[in-house]
Amino acid sequence: MKLGRVVGTVVSTIKSSGLNSHKLLLVCPLDLAADSVASKDGETFVAIDLAGAGEHEIVLVSYGSAARISAGTSDVPTDAAIVAVVDNVQIGERNAYSKG
Amino acid sequence: MKLGRVVGTVVSTIKSSGLNSHKLLLVCPLDLAADSVASKDGETFVAIDLAGAGEHEIVLVSYGSAARISAGTSDVPTDAAIVAVVDNVQIGERNAYSKG
Amino acid sequence: MKLGRVVGTVVSTIKSSGLNSHKLLLVCPLDLAADSVASKDGETFVAIDLAGAGEHEIVLVSYGSAARISAGTSDVPTDAAIVAVVDNVQIGERNAYSKG
Amino acid sequence: MKLGRVVGTVVSTIKSSGLNSHKLLLVCPLDLAADSVASKDGETFVAIDLAGAGEHEIVLVSYGSAARISAGTSDVPTDAAIVAVVDNVQIGERNAYSKG
Amino acid sequence: MKLGRVVGTVVSTIKSSGLNSHKLLLVCPLDLAADSVASKDGETFVAIDLAGAGEHEIVLVSYGSAARISAGTSDVPTDAAIVAVVDNVQIGERNAYSKG
Repeated sequence: MKLGRVVGTVVSTIKSSGLNSHKLLLVCPLDLAADSVASKDGETFVAIDLAGAGEHEIVLVSYGSAARISAGTSDVPTDAAIVAVVDNVQIGERNAYSKG
Repeated sequence: MKLGRVVGTVVSTIKSSGLNSHKLLLVCPLDLAADSVASKDGETFVAIDLAGAGEHEIVLVSYGSAARISAGTSDVPTDAAIVAVVDNVQIGERNAYSKG
Repeated sequence: MKLGRVVGTVVSTIKSSGLNSHKLLLVCPLDLAADSVASKDGETFVAIDLAGAGEHEIVLVSYGSAARISAGTSDVPTDAAIVAVVDNVQIGERNAYSKG
Repeated sequence: MKLGRVVGTVVSTIKSSGLNSHKLLLVCPLDLAADSVASKDGETFVAIDLAGAGEHEIVLVSYGSAARISAGTSDVPTDAAIVAVVDNVQIGERNAYSKG
Repeated sequence: MKLGRVVGTVVSTIKSSGLNSHKLLLVCPLDLAADSVASKDGETFVAIDLAGAGEHEIVLVSYGSAARISAGTSDVPTDAAIVAVVDNVQIGERNAYSKG
């Protein structure tokens, strides 16, 4: 799974019926290698939201078939799902992120 | 899932029978990191079309087994499917894309 | 799926039994972003051949579990399969490739 | 599978129920190409822990559906799992890593 | 599938039980684009051995769920398996590799 930040939304009328009941959010992956949290802008993707995530929140995203393991998702033709809203990221002794 | 633009078509006579009933479209992934929508030309791929997408339209593409979740696709040997035609992409306060 | 060119063959005596009945071909992915068709030499991989592809032909390749969807492939331990021989690739108004 | 080092933890209250019973660890992939073990900082990801791994330990990580093969994981919406704590890595005649 | 060279071994005592009966080998992917066979050192990974591969041998590796298709592997939490020992690689008219 990867950490990412919710940066936007995607709206579509003509789509596979399995996508009807899920919000489509734009997520930008985060790079935790630096001393602070930075964005990997060029790798932004679209995920269904399974955690009620809000814009700017840091979330945990599962890719591939893992995106269809949670209840009610087996018929959704998606390869990415927000499976958690992140409260805290700890790297060694450092508190790298805390939800404000 | 990723956003992409339909840029062309692929025609084949000799193919796995599961591909017979689906249109094969060339899709170029889009980079939403910049202030405008830019193309990742070198990463163009081929997807089956499940949304009746037209050339130049911006679409949502699912990869991997997600491409075979929609009705009538379980026997199609594909790893990519256009699952939606995109109407609108909103990034923060900015309207990054609207179908014309 | 990706477009690629058949560039060679791989022969093996000691292998998983599921590979016994399939030809192993070396495939070089193609970059369609430029005005002409160019090869991504460093990304050459091995695929089973489900379309009777010949050397130098341009083919369509499916990756992952999609490589085991066609008839007779469910027991083959492969993650890549040639699922079509390409006749024509059209990019916008331009005929990017036609089988000679 | 890839070798990685456990570098931190992720805490979340709002999450898919399948994630409830598993610890979420931050793992940094290791590059074994150099003469010593180096970190690929920019590729840090999140995995569930199936091996009781401790911080700083070198672990073996499985990706994709492989992360849900072990007992009790079929309902966990994850695409990465720590499946082993590494004791020793041998590269040719050289002992590249031994657990201290 | 990709071609790679066996470069080492990984030993682990604490691991998912599904890994107990399989040898864990370090494999370095090979780049066949150049005129000779070169190693992609930075992409070394760990695979289970299904072909009795020896150190320095060139092997064929399957990734993802393909690694668990061969007999006796459905319960192994791995995403990579050596499925063949390579005897010969032919690129066009050139014999790129022959097992010594």
